Amino acid sequence: MARVQPLSGFPEWSPQDRLLESHVISTLGEVFALHGFGEIQTRAVEPIGRLAGDSDASKEIYTLGRLTAEGDADAKLGLHFDLTVPFARYVEERQGQLQFPFRRFQIQKVWRGERPQEGRFREFYQADIDVVGRENLPEHLESEVAIVMARALAALPIPAVRMHVNNRQLVEGFYEGVGITDVAGALRSVDKLDKIGPEGVRKELTGKGVDERAADAVLELAKISSPDASFAGAVEDLWETTVLVDDGPVVEAAQLKLARGIASLAALVTGVNEATATDGNGGVAVADLRIARGLDYYTGSVYETFLTGHEDLGSICSGGRYDSLIAGGGFPGVGMSIGVSRLVSRILGAELASATRSVPSAVLVAVTDAEARGASASIADRLRARGIACEVSPSAAKFGKQIQYADRRGIPFVWFPDAGEGACADGEVKDIRSGEQNPADADAWTPPAEDLKPRIVHG
Amino acid sequence: MARVQPLSGFPEWSPQDRLLESHVISTLGEVFALHGFGEIQTRAVEPIGRLAGDSDASKEIYTLGRLTAEGDADAKLGLHFDLTVPFARYVEERQGQLQFPFRRFQIQKVWRGERPQEGRFREFYQADIDVVGRENLPEHLESEVAIVMARALAALPIPAVRMHVNNRQLVEGFYEGVGITDVAGALRSVDKLDKIGPEGVRKELTGKGVDERAADAVLELAKISSPDASFAGAVEDLWETTVLVDDGPVVEAAQLKLARGIASLAALVTGVNEATATDGNGGVAVADLRIARGLDYYTGSVYETFLTGHEDLGSICSGGRYDSLIAGGGFPGVGMSIGVSRLVSRILGAELASATRSVPSAVLVAVTDAEARGASASIADRLRARGIACEVSPSAAKFGKQIQYADRRGIPFVWFPDAGEGACADGEVKDIRSGEQNPADADAWTPPAEDLKPRIVHG
Repeated sequence: MARVQPLSGFPEWSPQDRLLESHVISTLGEVFALHGFGEIQTRAVEPIGRLAGDSDASKEIYTLGRLTAEGDADAKLGLHFDLTVPFARYVEERQGQLQFPFRRFQIQKVWRGERPQEGRFREFYQADIDVVGRENLPEHLESEVAIVMARALAALPIPAVRMHVNNRQLVEGFYEGVGITDVAGALRSVDKLDKIGPEGVRKELTGKGVDERAADAVLELAKISSPDASFAGAVEDLWETTVLVDDGPVVEAAQLKLARGIASLAALVTGVNEATATDGNGGVAVADLRIARGLDYYTGSVYETFLTGHEDLGSICSGGRYDSLIAGGGFPGVGMSIGVSRLVSRILGAELASATRSVPSAVLVAVTDAEARGASASIADRLRARGIACEVSPSAAKFGKQIQYADRRGIPFVWFPDAGEGACADGEVKDIRSGEQNPADADAWTPPAEDLKPRIVHG
Repeated sequence: MARVQPLSGFPEWSPQDRLLESHVISTLGEVFALHGFGEIQTRAVEPIGRLAGDSDASKEIYTLGRLTAEGDADAKLGLHFDLTVPFARYVEERQGQLQFPFRRFQIQKVWRGERPQEGRFREFYQADIDVVGRENLPEHLESEVAIVMARALAALPIPAVRMHVNNRQLVEGFYEGVGITDVAGALRSVDKLDKIGPEGVRKELTGKGVDERAADAVLELAKISSPDASFAGAVEDLWETTVLVDDGPVVEAAQLKLARGIASLAALVTGVNEATATDGNGGVAVADLRIARGLDYYTGSVYETFLTGHEDLGSICSGGRYDSLIAGGGFPGVGMSIGVSRLVSRILGAELASATRSVPSAVLVAVTDAEARGASASIADRLRARGIACEVSPSAAKFGKQIQYADRRGIPFVWFPDAGEGACADGEVKDIRSGEQNPADADAWTPPAEDLKPRIVHG
């Protein structure tokens, strides 16, 4: 068999690092559930026709085949590359059984055949929440989803986040007002601001036929940001001083959209900051009018979230409001998605947090001699009955060897069942870090709370 | 877009049924951890060369491709069809970092392109535990792994199980004693006893060149079973009266193997039954000498587990002792694997257990009018601060409508923040099942324990 080599882009963690990943996943799930989101999981595969809507993503789809010709029908399946496509299909399939607005969370692996590079994975966990209505969806849910995500991220062992929010109505109204007809194309250019800078964006825009002055206005708009509703005044001022398209009805319609977008964004940034403010911190949201999001289907709020001190990661949690989850229309929703594996990879790589030990066991029950294994097993079971994870020494080697075994595995306590004549019936327990050893009763002794289970600690 | 159709063999659950699946998975993980098994997860893909060892499994492997030619290198990957192959690769890759004996559990989806049929899935969860040594592995771990699995299964909302155990040394010794040279081939035939019956097996054996009297002896051996060590006498009696091969050294070697196997199986059945006995129940294990297990690599104990009243499911938890996890040798281990999705599917299908509701929320906080949404959100947050999952009504409709909304979603309580003049500051909470409504304080009120979270109940 060939020598084993890690596959680039397919991360795997050590048992200790898996505890961190597992903690992140379960913490997110707990916060989501606390806010009334129920969990679903979908199958890993979808028909290719459903996956291959957009040409960029198509290149990244993994298709399924079979070693033998037999399974040809399966050749039309591919692995999902996000959790939105399968969620849409799930809702479409079960629309008769689900209650709307339907609130769900979903934490699963997805696969993308991206070119492997730093921080880009081909297999990774995503954690999504969405609320989907049947005919309509109240706007306040656009704040609620952002608040839930902000709280979920705050529960993780990571630095503070900043959530940059914008509104598509606002941007579209403004763009249409300055005479841009291909709004989606202009948004895709503005989405590249970080990569190609303002000059690059201007060049792209004018290349697409956007008027020079309109391109300037678009770039001015993208400069506006505020951690509260004060962006509104700046946008209105810019609108007043910008040369608008010479077409009354277009300007009127554009202004209406702009005003709706401003109101919605103001409510969002204010609502999120009220709900996430802490002492000495005004909340996580900032209205940032450069946030474009590449995807066409967003129609209201859009979100991107950055980790303080780790902005190079890009957005760790993004999403937005959309008109309909499913192709036929009628299922408006709002959702956000966390790139869990990328976040976990950074937490581990930057040593932001780690598990206190690699094994669940708090206690190794030593074995005095092979015949006495049963006595050790019985002590272990009495500890387990009270929720204390433990294991029995695999061999009845010298006690020094057994202590060494516990030490190498990071098990903090060793229990000696037979402490000799006149000692406690259950023997003694030793904290192998301090060396302290005391008589103990297997029905009563408990390790200190911080040693009971592996914990996640910062730094 | 084409109409949505469920894909045969790719199960998906409703939000309520997912709670049952999630309960099964987390319960298994808790029992495994309590016994000192740490969790790992491996990537979903392996190089085809590693997966395609055995020709039967090869037909079932899903290979990965790409829609575009670009990703040709990936064409050599396939989805794992069990958790043993990736675990072996994981141990091989990390042998320098892991502590041996290495105890791990792993609960992940696997994929097999089987012909879809009742109870056969193409995508399903497996839950595995293994203990792997570096050079050697004490025999008592063969009992321990079975005990841990028996306890994990006992913690699930399912009927009692019966674990049928056998020993390869015993069987091999016996087979060699009666002159069978292709022991693996004979085992594969005996493994079909349930499918083709004793006559079918006899025919296969004699077709493979096994002597008629030897075939009879093999079938006699397969009849022996006992819930304790008494099988040993029956095996020894059969050995005494069976016509053995006329070759002294072969018989002598075979008898030694047989004796070792008998001792090991006796220790296993006794040890497991001691550890799993309850009032009026002698333990879950039965020595059953017909258990063959198709896989060549087992070398000691083998296990199959059946659910009482659901024996038609086949074995729900199988495994055995093997000489080396990895191809180069030197990593002896013992492991068992639960077919989680098949079990979950049966629990749901036979209504053995279900979740008490489909949503996490215990409380719907009603909204009096749109302006008062903030007051409702604040009550919700005070409940959440004490771990009570809740959601705020999506609309400020008439209270009757809001109660209906909660009712349809299965949320047991509705909180009315504004109960009118002179009422409690936080309003009143109504149990919508009984209709009882009482003033309540959002910092103090708690739902009855059985309503706090969705619970899993039998039947």
